[in-house]
Amino acid sequence: MNGKHGHRSSIQNRDMTPEAFVREITGGNRSALSRAITLIESSRPDHQKKAHEILDLCLQHRTNSLRIGITGPPGVGKSTLIESLGNEIIKNQANRLAILTIDPSSQQSGGSILGDKARMERLTGKKEVYIRPSPSSGHLGGTSPKTHEVILLAEAAGFNVIIVETVGVGQSEITVESMVDFILLLMLPGSGDELQGIKRGIMEIADAVTVTKIDEAERGVLLRSRSSCEAAMRLLPKKYPCWTPEVILSSAVTGQGIEEIWKNIQDFTTILTAEGLFQQHRKKQLNRLFTAMVDEQLRQAFYNHPEIEFSLQELAAKVEENLISPFSGAQHLVRKLLPLPQ
Amino acid sequence: MNGKHGHRSSIQNRDMTPEAFVREITGGNRSALSRAITLIESSRPDHQKKAHEILDLCLQHRTNSLRIGITGPPGVGKSTLIESLGNEIIKNQANRLAILTIDPSSQQSGGSILGDKARMERLTGKKEVYIRPSPSSGHLGGTSPKTHEVILLAEAAGFNVIIVETVGVGQSEITVESMVDFILLLMLPGSGDELQGIKRGIMEIADAVTVTKIDEAERGVLLRSRSSCEAAMRLLPKKYPCWTPEVILSSAVTGQGIEEIWKNIQDFTTILTAEGLFQQHRKKQLNRLFTAMVDEQLRQAFYNHPEIEFSLQELAAKVEENLISPFSGAQHLVRKLLPLPQ
Repeated sequence: MNGKHGHRSSIQNRDMTPEAFVREITGGNRSALSRAITLIESSRPDHQKKAHEILDLCLQHRTNSLRIGITGPPGVGKSTLIESLGNEIIKNQANRLAILTIDPSSQQSGGSILGDKARMERLTGKKEVYIRPSPSSGHLGGTSPKTHEVILLAEAAGFNVIIVETVGVGQSEITVESMVDFILLLMLPGSGDELQGIKRGIMEIADAVTVTKIDEAERGVLLRSRSSCEAAMRLLPKKYPCWTPEVILSSAVTGQGIEEIWKNIQDFTTILTAEGLFQQHRKKQLNRLFTAMVDEQLRQAFYNHPEIEFSLQELAAKVEENLISPFSGAQHLVRKLLPLPQ
Repeated sequence: MNGKHGHRSSIQNRDMTPEAFVREITGGNRSALSRAITLIESSRPDHQKKAHEILDLCLQHRTNSLRIGITGPPGVGKSTLIESLGNEIIKNQANRLAILTIDPSSQQSGGSILGDKARMERLTGKKEVYIRPSPSSGHLGGTSPKTHEVILLAEAAGFNVIIVETVGVGQSEITVESMVDFILLLMLPGSGDELQGIKRGIMEIADAVTVTKIDEAERGVLLRSRSSCEAAMRLLPKKYPCWTPEVILSSAVTGQGIEEIWKNIQDFTTILTAEGLFQQHRKKQLNRLFTAMVDEQLRQAFYNHPEIEFSLQELAAKVEENLISPFSGAQHLVRKLLPLPQ
């Protein structure tokens, strides 16, 4: 099935209208979904154009969804935890799960060379699960702004639980925070004291913390890990007045804590929805994404304008020769296309 | 003199044409220079407009100058070193020195509450020295992009050596690097081992390092400081193939090392000018400033456009309600003023 569609995909992409794409995606054709995601991830302008025509149409077919971000340092066991948690989630037969992971091939550290599908073999091939590795090129930790658009496509395809995996290296969690509802931070046992160099910013955006691989650690270490995590969390400002992040001990091997994590996420959703905060958070996220895209589109439209491309070189040369100040040069350039504010 | 001009300044600012301003500035009227700098630093659009008319005219009256950035952590003795170095510089009677310092009132740490002029009492009042404290509001470390424009004004006023003081806290040195020719990094003795938490990025842009307050430290500590600084510098990529940064021991109290620092700066200028790198560096700086200003002007012109101000709210609301994708919303908005690239 994959092979067949893969073989014909280049022909189909050109032939299929955005409407046909949406019909296939919402009808459950995973190959069409994958090809639409590839269009989203492409930097070619014609791909981008078609991708966003598809995306706009998809917004009419949205699913009430829950988006979960999974983050933590390399080696903490993100893939195995996602596999266990995924199996827990699909115990409810109404759930359809999409997992957006980092392509390990483009990661410097962490991740197996076997690829994500092989790493999550207990989930691969299940009809209710869709796994999509994304190239992390240019975006630290692998969560690009495009991930937000991929989430929207997956939701149009009927997936109601979306897991986004990201490496906890700094900027990427802030990005993932702008697109998921719940952030689960993974930490290794014994990491309490120095908190593994985990930055305060990452602790602050976590809605729950789980200490992983507890089957490999002693009980004393685990209790210390949990209490120092809890102490650290208490020092941080609260993200929501109605929610206190928990620290949960877990093992993807024994399965301990996995059910508790999923219950915690569901509790979070229930409480925040009741308070109206769930939808409010989503709106804020969309607004931020919109603003970022306006900036990006503005710069593209400006710098690719034929008149600007030409004048930019000319004015830059004048500025470099001190014939005109940088400020006045900039004004001249912008004024060619836009009236300056008074 | 100051008082007289200060008293009449508000009337004069309104009455004086940009041409008159430039005549006064280039004629040596310091009050006019100070008032022009205040216009540069103002955020009022009419002030900005006038300031840049003055600046453009000033570019015709440029002085061959040497711009020195002085940076280092709080408490390292930047003010006292600048005072000693300044006195060394004006021993050559052809030199006229402008010092652009951070206004201590807006700094969280470091700096005396007496203000810069009081801190540099051996320089204040000298006819060949002009000291200008700048508010550091909004710009960490006190070096705003506007400092570059203030430098251009001071040069039009005939100052041929410009010292820019900045606190070594991270971003600000990168900014100062974009506007000065030579960067002197100050470090305390004994700070070699951990390098005082000085970031690699700051070491990388230094053209010389001086270990300060050597009158307060033991000889062993000093030698260790110097050799560990030198070792650190050797690990870093070279900024210029023809220049190896030196580590100089200095004391503003005994005067030791001050002459050596000034000689080092002059050697640097001679060597880089001979290689053509001095002017090349200046051109790159102007180009970077120009690009930053185009971005700033573009955003201002766009977001303050009446049609955009109105549509932005409307489109943001549609995006938040999922009636339109953030990407398409951004396209709609930008397309109102600019054609989108094909």
